[in-house]
Amino acid sequence: MAKIAILGAGMMGTALATPLADRGHDVRLVGTPLDGAVIRALRDAGVHPKLGTPLPAGVTPHDVSELPGVAADADVLALGVSSAGVPWACEALRPLARRGRPIAMITKGLVVDGERVVPLPDVVERALPADVRGDVWPVAVAGPCIAGELARRAPTVVVLTGRHQPTLDRLRGLLETEYYVPLSSLDVEGVEVCAALKNAYAMGVALPAGMHEARGGAAGSVAMHNLESAVFAQAVLEMSRVAVAIGGRAETALGLPGAGDLDVTCNGGRTGRFGRLLGLGIGRDEAVRRMEGATLECLEILAVLRRAVPTLEASGRLSPGALPLLSHLMEVALDDRPVALPISRFGAA
Amino acid sequence: MAKIAILGAGMMGTALATPLADRGHDVRLVGTPLDGAVIRALRDAGVHPKLGTPLPAGVTPHDVSELPGVAADADVLALGVSSAGVPWACEALRPLARRGRPIAMITKGLVVDGERVVPLPDVVERALPADVRGDVWPVAVAGPCIAGELARRAPTVVVLTGRHQPTLDRLRGLLETEYYVPLSSLDVEGVEVCAALKNAYAMGVALPAGMHEARGGAAGSVAMHNLESAVFAQAVLEMSRVAVAIGGRAETALGLPGAGDLDVTCNGGRTGRFGRLLGLGIGRDEAVRRMEGATLECLEILAVLRRAVPTLEASGRLSPGALPLLSHLMEVALDDRPVALPISRFGAA
Repeated sequence: MAKIAILGAGMMGTALATPLADRGHDVRLVGTPLDGAVIRALRDAGVHPKLGTPLPAGVTPHDVSELPGVAADADVLALGVSSAGVPWACEALRPLARRGRPIAMITKGLVVDGERVVPLPDVVERALPADVRGDVWPVAVAGPCIAGELARRAPTVVVLTGRHQPTLDRLRGLLETEYYVPLSSLDVEGVEVCAALKNAYAMGVALPAGMHEARGGAAGSVAMHNLESAVFAQAVLEMSRVAVAIGGRAETALGLPGAGDLDVTCNGGRTGRFGRLLGLGIGRDEAVRRMEGATLECLEILAVLRRAVPTLEASGRLSPGALPLLSHLMEVALDDRPVALPISRFGAA
Repeated sequence: MAKIAILGAGMMGTALATPLADRGHDVRLVGTPLDGAVIRALRDAGVHPKLGTPLPAGVTPHDVSELPGVAADADVLALGVSSAGVPWACEALRPLARRGRPIAMITKGLVVDGERVVPLPDVVERALPADVRGDVWPVAVAGPCIAGELARRAPTVVVLTGRHQPTLDRLRGLLETEYYVPLSSLDVEGVEVCAALKNAYAMGVALPAGMHEARGGAAGSVAMHNLESAVFAQAVLEMSRVAVAIGGRAETALGLPGAGDLDVTCNGGRTGRFGRLLGLGIGRDEAVRRMEGATLECLEILAVLRRAVPTLEASGRLSPGALPLLSHLMEVALDDRPVALPISRFGAA
């Protein structure tokens, strides 16, 4: 039995508590300053307001003020904030970092740091105090996981990625249940590229649904599925190219972090709704307006890639024209250009 | 303008006539002995009874008895029969094969020949008369293509595969339209493995829908999508392993022939309905009965692989245990064993 402190009581942070609790661990779920209402609801009703599931036995909800206390004897720290919350979370974690106390992150993504594209686990690692850096290897959890399904114990296979195999093995040993299988990968770059880009590409896969509708087509088995699947395949191909360009492995895009996570992200959700709206041809600004303030990770990652791609091309790590789909998605979603998927520039494999 | 004789007036053979006609080619659509009613309907009403679309201008329907006449001056022969029809079609094509007259096949698949797994284009090539063999390189058309969408000119990207780049380039030049983009690949083994196995794996991706239903779950954004996507990712991974085992490239599974074609095959259809029934737990025989005689390509290819895998393992080309998902799909669909997806044996990438 281990003691786990999860920082962030959003849907995914809370869902992760379920397999941990089922393994018999002592799980302390600590809200961020934005999670006050969630923590109150968990204390009062025992049900997470967004997940709609009861908190499993063995999980205690805590206000952010309790973090130092509940993390003091934790064996593992888990980071369950959104990517926007990472700078705050890094500050909060700094005094709690210890040698041999792994940090597991459900937050995923890439940032551009001058000439380099840096995966989030490395960002967190760099923010650690000098005396523990080099002894804590942050681990990210990626792969296809809808939080509401994990919280309901539906079978889920994810990938833990980090730079230290013993840490990956240790976390795997703490997390695995019959319904929750965490595999591991040392390819941090490849996994994080896929985890970040899948939102942009899922927007792309949803465009044909809107295009079909705009032509007066009805939903059904004959629609624009050929185009959806062509976009899906091109997305996996381009994810593998970006992974290689920043030092990762092409094969990672084949599996759970790439094809798997993209597939699950294409099951509706806000990214898919936004892509469909763009496919309808109503324009980017109107599409954003109709999303009523929903967080659109696809826009964030497209903006990151717009900064990163020229540098990767200039250094020869990415061939010019290697990402025709991503380039068009940037034009559509960032520049408000009309949708015209460049299928004649897609690749065979 | 070229003269094209298509043998087989099924949905896909007929759909292929649309881009050819739009390019201005003279297209002769010749029914097999099983297509008599289709050819009569095309002559009488001008509409394909299964596609529901009118035959484009420039396409003439012909009875099988007219084959020698309409193929005599054809620049290209196209094969549009089901894989079960290949032996008959090979006999029919033998007297029509000429040097420099390409054979394009929409039929895809693998056969086991003693110790070897042979892709269908090679089967067709071997059946050609000795004097043209070595000068005709059959080309297969693979990738995500629902015939009803192509016949309605919805955007479609496919992959032509064969062993002779000039033939691939020539066919690409004849086929490409604004809405139909044929890319090319010399990886015949990889493309054919993906084309054949996608039916078996699409059955696997559909299992969780039935499992969710059997547990009393309703369709929706929280279902068993995590498991579906884990199966999807494992399927792409295993397709790449089988491709490599028979001499193909792993990367082919990444793109249109692998991830793309699997994705489009997961849009309902009979394979998906059969997988859902198996996931419900009603047993293989009852599931087959409820399919009311529909052709189940997934059962055919699983039977082929059951014969092929032991040989591939014995020769060291495939590691034992490399295909846990496919092995389980064989148990379920061929041996009537209960569904218990082996997620703890899935791979990270």
